[in-house]
Amino acid sequence: MQNYSSKLLENAVNQIAKLPGIGKRTAVRLALYFLKQSKEDVSAFTSAILTLCNDVFHCSCCHNISDSEQCEICRDLKRNKSLVCVVQDIRDVIAIENTSAYNGIYHVLGGVISPMNGIGIAELNLQSLFERLTQENIEELILALPSTTEGDTTGYYIFKHVQSSECSVKVTVIARGLSVGDELEYADEITLSRSLLNRIDFETSIMKK
Amino acid sequence: MQNYSSKLLENAVNQIAKLPGIGKRTAVRLALYFLKQSKEDVSAFTSAILTLCNDVFHCSCCHNISDSEQCEICRDLKRNKSLVCVVQDIRDVIAIENTSAYNGIYHVLGGVISPMNGIGIAELNLQSLFERLTQENIEELILALPSTTEGDTTGYYIFKHVQSSECSVKVTVIARGLSVGDELEYADEITLSRSLLNRIDFETSIMKK
Repeated sequence: MQNYSSKLLENAVNQIAKLPGIGKRTAVRLALYFLKQSKEDVSAFTSAILTLCNDVFHCSCCHNISDSEQCEICRDLKRNKSLVCVVQDIRDVIAIENTSAYNGIYHVLGGVISPMNGIGIAELNLQSLFERLTQENIEELILALPSTTEGDTTGYYIFKHVQSSECSVKVTVIARGLSVGDELEYADEITLSRSLLNRIDFETSIMKK
Repeated sequence: MQNYSSKLLENAVNQIAKLPGIGKRTAVRLALYFLKQSKEDVSAFTSAILTLCNDVFHCSCCHNISDSEQCEICRDLKRNKSLVCVVQDIRDVIAIENTSAYNGIYHVLGGVISPMNGIGIAELNLQSLFERLTQENIEELILALPSTTEGDTTGYYIFKHVQSSECSVKVTVIARGLSVGDELEYADEITLSRSLLNRIDFETSIMKK
């Protein structure tokens, strides 16, 4: 039991320590940091979080985070609406958007199938994805899911559903292989063997640069 | 420039990323964590921080954090008021209190002399310490400052002031040496040489255990 000599400090530390990846020691440091800030700065911080939690929308179409009912990406007329990238999380949308290499739209599952963590098919935005496949004019579904057993399972489930349904959507997955700048000797065996298996024509690889 | 597809998220991320030791990536993770929490949990978090910043006191005597004008430690009648431990920060008070090995009171400087960071004598609670030396019946001042150039400078400044003033206060410093459980071969040279220089009688060391 820690002795903080202030109930207010103890309460703040306990609240901060609930955040993922933040322990008691960091929580104390952050609480004392807040104490040193001006009241305006602290209330700007807390109101930014409160406003986010109270006013934000999840896009009715792709479940991405949004300031309006439909997100910027879904509303964007320049986007290729026949190309849908399936991702686990909003963070993955941000990551892909930052590459500026993708011009399609998204579908955020909100997780991957993981029975160990109590996440089944019903917990994910899978039903709405399958509805989009029948209602929208989608030509290709890019699976950009994590390279884990759970990610692969989820991808396989989606693929099987598309196959069994009557829609003629092409399902692709993002390439797995050596990161740009990686040395071969430090790559793990599975990544390296996948890189070899999924090798592409040299001329194509030059053209894509 | 990151693309968050939501101004609210962007604002929250920017606010969270201002915290010490938290980068943009962690800030996104935390913002999305808040989004997944119930509104009650989020408002418990923000109000704990706001209450801390608005309602907390700094003890009028020792500058420790407190829920009332004078802190619990200064008000405690069982404490030895002739023994004052000088520390840099409130966190150090918490650390020493957690040892349960100290029965005196404290004086929190709020930093150490560090001209490089613009912290001079005026920025620290030194004047109030010197006032306490004349007004209170203090017998010993324990310097528990960081083992850095700045900490040593601050300690030396306090020692010189006490020496030049007419009060007969004994000034001591906490022992520097090998941590309990440390191997000699991994200790740095300065720590090891200080440990040797400041060696104590074996019988005394047994009795103190």
